[in-house]
This record gives sequence, structure tokens and C-alpha cells, in this order.
Amino acid sequence: MPGHETRFVGGSLGRWQVIGMDVVAGAGLEWADRGAILRDSALEGPNDSRWVVRGVASYERYVTRPEREALLARQQELGRPQATQAALIAISKSAAWWDLTQDERRAVLEERSGHIRTGLQYLPAVARRLYHCRDLGEPFDFLTWFEYAPHDQRRFDELVGKLRKFEEWTFVEREVDIRLVRPGL
Amino acid sequence: MPGHETRFVGGSLGRWQVIGMDVVAGAGLEWADRGAILRDSALEGPNDSRWVVRGVASYERYVTRPEREALLARQQELGRPQATQAALIAISKSAAWWDLTQDERRAVLEERSGHIRTGLQYLPAVARRLYHCRDLGEPFDFLTWFEYAPHDQRRFDELVGKLRKFEEWTFVEREVDIRLVRPGL
Repeated sequence: MPGHETRFVGGSLGRWQVIGMDVVAGAGLEWADRGAILRDSALEGPNDSRWVVRGVASYERYVTRPEREALLARQQELGRPQATQAALIAISKSAAWWDLTQDERRAVLEERSGHIRTGLQYLPAVARRLYHCRDLGEPFDFLTWFEYAPHDQRRFDELVGKLRKFEEWTFVEREVDIRLVRPGL
Repeated sequence: MPGHETRFVGGSLGRWQVIGMDVVAGAGLEWADRGAILRDSALEGPNDSRWVVRGVASYERYVTRPEREALLARQQELGRPQATQAALIAISKSAAWWDLTQDERRAVLEERSGHIRTGLQYLPAVARRLYHCRDLGEPFDFLTWFEYAPHDQRRFDELVGKLRKFEEWTFVEREVDIRLVRPGL
């Protein structure tokens, strides 16, 4: 079943121009001038890529029904014309995280950290899609792609700053934060 | 990161002899005389295979800490010399299942069906390993490999019969149950 994956390719081609890459924890990625998002049949990608990371937009692991309803009521789709700024945040969590049971992971993520309820405060300004990659044997466990308008960049930075102070983030052992822009439509 | 997957190959080679294949729901698999389990570097497998299904022994999605402790206290490893009988049960669940939130899936699986507590009753006789494949884009969502001694076959059939009567199983839309034996050590 090819085509179920999404690949993010860093290289010299792609719609998105890379304007920054911050290695927050662990090993970085090579600098790339541009970023491309490839889905479905386009999965081959350019030959000159510096890196390719891939993930699957899978079923939700943590949100409850009321949380999902609250998210759906406020969240926006990717691809809004005014959302010309983006971030690709690639994360791996420690063995200690993956050895927690499901209810323990949920308790750290939401009851003690507030990951879901904090993210809600930044909707609809920030649109977001999470990709899972741990089961694919990838170097990262998660990729999250965010899109927002230029005037919401400070709010996005505030959101990311809050997340990184959470107890959940003590389990993050690798994190690369790539910022991108594209021409307005 | 190759080697994180396990592949089950049906063909004319392999340590395990197929003695039965029951298509419980949905599409079946072609008959194969033998089954092989390939891990790590051996992932290529024989050329004459009738089918290959693959999965990842991933982190646990549903068990709580007390449940994990109870399972660990009783469960046995795969590969016991007397466990010369095996079953490979391949399952896909419906879109309705995957659209449930995590807490709803847990409620169906354990609170209302008793999947975990029922399985516990068949330990240590039945050894088991679950492989996840949904995120890999495979045709099945899960593969479970079971091993038991010949004198425990009736108990294993009883366990499978109970599981199939659970509310959880109303979400199963494809299920193939393959039984195998190997020469005793």
C-alpha cells in the first residue's frame, strides 16, 4: 500500500524555502535550502536531497472524544493562502517514554503537561498535522508540520516555548526545528 | 533502520509446517505449505513465497501498569521446546474502530470485552507476540503469533473462540487464522 506515507525532503528543490534550522536536542540534519512535501505517487523525490524523513498521518493516540470535538471545532486545514510560514519539528523520545504504559504516557502528556489544551489555545492561528514514524524504523518518532501567517509567528514561537518547558519534553532526546516560508498565493 | 520489522512468509520453505488456514472474515491468503519468520538481516526471504506479511513489535497501546505487571509475571517467551504448535492470526479492523478515540478503543477492548484479562487466563500455556502493521501500509493492521504445546491446543481454541465473541470483534473486518507445527526439539 504505497502512498500512505508523507515524505519531507530537504534539498535544492521544493516549494518551501528553509529560513532556519535549530537543533534543539541530539543530532541535527544537514542544511538544505529548500523543503518539499511528497505524498502518494510523488514519493521518489529529487535525487539531490540532503535528507528525507517520512511519516504516516495515523490514528490518534491520546485525545479523548471531548478533546477531539474541541480541536475539530477550532482547527484549520493546511494550505491556507495566508499561511506562508511553516515549521517542521522532528522529535524522538527516549526509551523511558516508550516503556511507559499508555495511561502513564497520557498522564504525562496531558494531565501533567497540558500538551493538548495548550495547543488548543493557538487554534485556529496555527494549523498542524502530526505524522508518526516510530513504527517505520525512522530516526525520528514524530514529525509535526505547522502552518501560520507571518503575523502569527510570535504566537507560534510562544507555543513551542511552552511545550519545551513541559514534563513531557524531559523525554525528548532529539529535536530539530526547521522553519520555512513560501511565496504568498 | 532496517531490521526493526518481522516478516512472516508463506511458501515452500520455513521451519513451520502449515496445517490449517481458516479465513474467518474478509479476504484470505493463498495456501502455503510452510511458514518462515524472518527478522533483521534475513529480511529478503525465499523467492517462491506465496505471501509476505510484516509487522513491528511496537510499544503497547492499551495495557495499564498493573496489567503489564500481571502479564509479565505469568507470560512465557516464544521458543519453548515443548511449544511445537503455533498460530498466526492476522487481523484488520474497520474504519469505525480507527475513528474511535484512544479512550473509547480502550473501553471496548478491555472494559467491555475483557481482551487483556481473558488472555491472562491462558498464561503461561500460550506464549504470544503482537506485531503492529497499520502504520506500515500493510493489508493487515495486526499480526499475532502464538505458541503452545500440543496438549494446550484445546485451551488455545477456547481462547480464540472467546475473543471472537467480544464486542471488540464486531470491528474486525478481515481475519485469517493460520495454524502451524514444527518438529519437537
